[in-house]
Amino acid sequence: MSGLTNRGITLTNRPAGHPQTSDFACVEYPVPTLLEGGVLRRTLYLSLDPYMRGRMREVAGYTTPATLGTPMVGGTVSQVIESKSDSFAVGDYVLGYDGWQEYGVSDGKDLRKLDPSKAPLSYALGALGMPGLTAYTALLDIGKPKAGETVVVSAAAGAVGSLVGQIARVLGCRAVGLAGSDEKCRFVTEDLGFDACINYKTQPLDEALKAACPNGIDVYYDNVAGAVLEAVLGHINLGARIPLVGLISQYNAVTPPPGPNLMSLLVKRALIHGFLVVDHTHREEAFQADMSKWIREGSVKVVEDTVEGLENAPEAFLGLFSGKNVGKLLVKVSPDPTQ
Amino acid sequence: MSGLTNRGITLTNRPAGHPQTSDFACVEYPVPTLLEGGVLRRTLYLSLDPYMRGRMREVAGYTTPATLGTPMVGGTVSQVIESKSDSFAVGDYVLGYDGWQEYGVSDGKDLRKLDPSKAPLSYALGALGMPGLTAYTALLDIGKPKAGETVVVSAAAGAVGSLVGQIARVLGCRAVGLAGSDEKCRFVTEDLGFDACINYKTQPLDEALKAACPNGIDVYYDNVAGAVLEAVLGHINLGARIPLVGLISQYNAVTPPPGPNLMSLLVKRALIHGFLVVDHTHREEAFQADMSKWIREGSVKVVEDTVEGLENAPEAFLGLFSGKNVGKLLVKVSPDPTQ
Repeated sequence: MSGLTNRGITLTNRPAGHPQTSDFACVEYPVPTLLEGGVLRRTLYLSLDPYMRGRMREVAGYTTPATLGTPMVGGTVSQVIESKSDSFAVGDYVLGYDGWQEYGVSDGKDLRKLDPSKAPLSYALGALGMPGLTAYTALLDIGKPKAGETVVVSAAAGAVGSLVGQIARVLGCRAVGLAGSDEKCRFVTEDLGFDACINYKTQPLDEALKAACPNGIDVYYDNVAGAVLEAVLGHINLGARIPLVGLISQYNAVTPPPGPNLMSLLVKRALIHGFLVVDHTHREEAFQADMSKWIREGSVKVVEDTVEGLENAPEAFLGLFSGKNVGKLLVKVSPDPTQ
Repeated sequence: MSGLTNRGITLTNRPAGHPQTSDFACVEYPVPTLLEGGVLRRTLYLSLDPYMRGRMREVAGYTTPATLGTPMVGGTVSQVIESKSDSFAVGDYVLGYDGWQEYGVSDGKDLRKLDPSKAPLSYALGALGMPGLTAYTALLDIGKPKAGETVVVSAAAGAVGSLVGQIARVLGCRAVGLAGSDEKCRFVTEDLGFDACINYKTQPLDEALKAACPNGIDVYYDNVAGAVLEAVLGHINLGARIPLVGLISQYNAVTPPPGPNLMSLLVKRALIHGFLVVDHTHREEAFQADMSKWIREGSVKVVEDTVEGLENAPEAFLGLFSGKNVGKLLVKVSPDPTQ
């Protein structure tokens, strides 16, 4: 397997404000010869997620920043094509973190085997992966919704939001989404079964929230912060819970914008609790069991937005911040043999 | 006891922005003749608290607004001077909610007897009353400080803040206050034993917090919101807890100012939890036991700021918002026979 050429997308520049495709470069470099114990795999799917914008900063906040000139980081589903490890065989499918490139090499300790007979391979990056665990644990463990309560979720057509509303419905809650186009809103209500969805770009937020949440808001699963959070705070019920899972509205801001006035948090004895999925991996087993069951039963639909070709990753990634995609955004880097 | 004349301070006008003494009036009216079952008492102490500013609004948030032309509401310690109730005798000392006036009349269901041999009567409005319960429950039940952690509290020289820092010390924490003058800061550290205190009006907040909290901030007991909260968020540790107990910095704002950017809440997986003491009355027994013990032992010092004469209540109340007072602000309405 010597002589293989790897291809990757590197970050060439730390963007100020909105990233551009010119902040990325496509580069080629040799795949190293495999050492004893090593595993070489070909990337089938690359996951694109909003958190990656944070990695592009010099000071990344809760993670180490991406290194300029090396492939961007990211979750991947791959197939083993050469193995000098006892743990992996050629042909195995694996979940890893190989980043924006066509091949990955390691000792395999960073890989988890996937069984393609149980679920489509790509689900391991979405509904049955990190975004799914994010939706599940932040909603259940911080939001703590009770049947009959109203759960509102922003970025409702996105990878996480689309799952949050569906899980809320499974739990017997009223699910109300916020999304950035009428088309997304129709999709969220008609295809995913949310009770209502508000187009936050065209509808007056206060009135729309009042109409969509006649009994007030008990849980607000926040992926975006900004104006939507501000508006939601005017409609929360006593003891409301707000898992703060993302602040997409400000990821490209050059200086951090102010946040919402917090008076209603006191008046309603409500809480905002910052969430990162890395703290919740102990819930993996319960999550896999519940989510697999819900998908099998059809009570949770999995929505994927798949872009073909690694070279299109930068443009697809930028689309995450301009509201272009619906569902889990994936790049199909090479053909999936199970499809 | 017929023929008594009552004197009260009424709200004549709902102030926009900072209240003025001209928003209040001193009025006289007859004390009604006592009916069967009734209890008449003379006010000894009136409590003045920041929450009263909320009652002065047309829409008061979490409580009903004060009624124009009737005495302002407020906690009182009184002595029974006439009783047609089996539950109270002339001479009894009682905790009530008679408001800004010299006499109160009711059937006594709103009264709790006080034992002057156990603690000075006025403590029932401060360290052993609502402000004490506020300090105790928001710190213990939301802040959940562990020995060795750093607890920061704003309005540290105030009725609640002065107790919070002292309780934090009892629990083995580092206690850091924020106050609005060097004199208050000296008082908080030298007299109350806080480890440090920052003058938020003169010191650069970021640097001062860094210096005063070398191990970061685990609990921020927030009485003020505003710029201090914003600055504190830059120094919180993983899993920090922020009980939001007051927003004094904005109580006189005509339109609600924006709040802090919440990114660090996510990065640090921290929480802000709105607090109102009315939800925590089930902790009264534990609070009374602990706080009485701490006061007896001398590990919590009680600080009172007592103004003489009901007619001075408006000006004293305004002082709460211009940083004039230290400790629990009380009006001595008539002489305390136990002193």
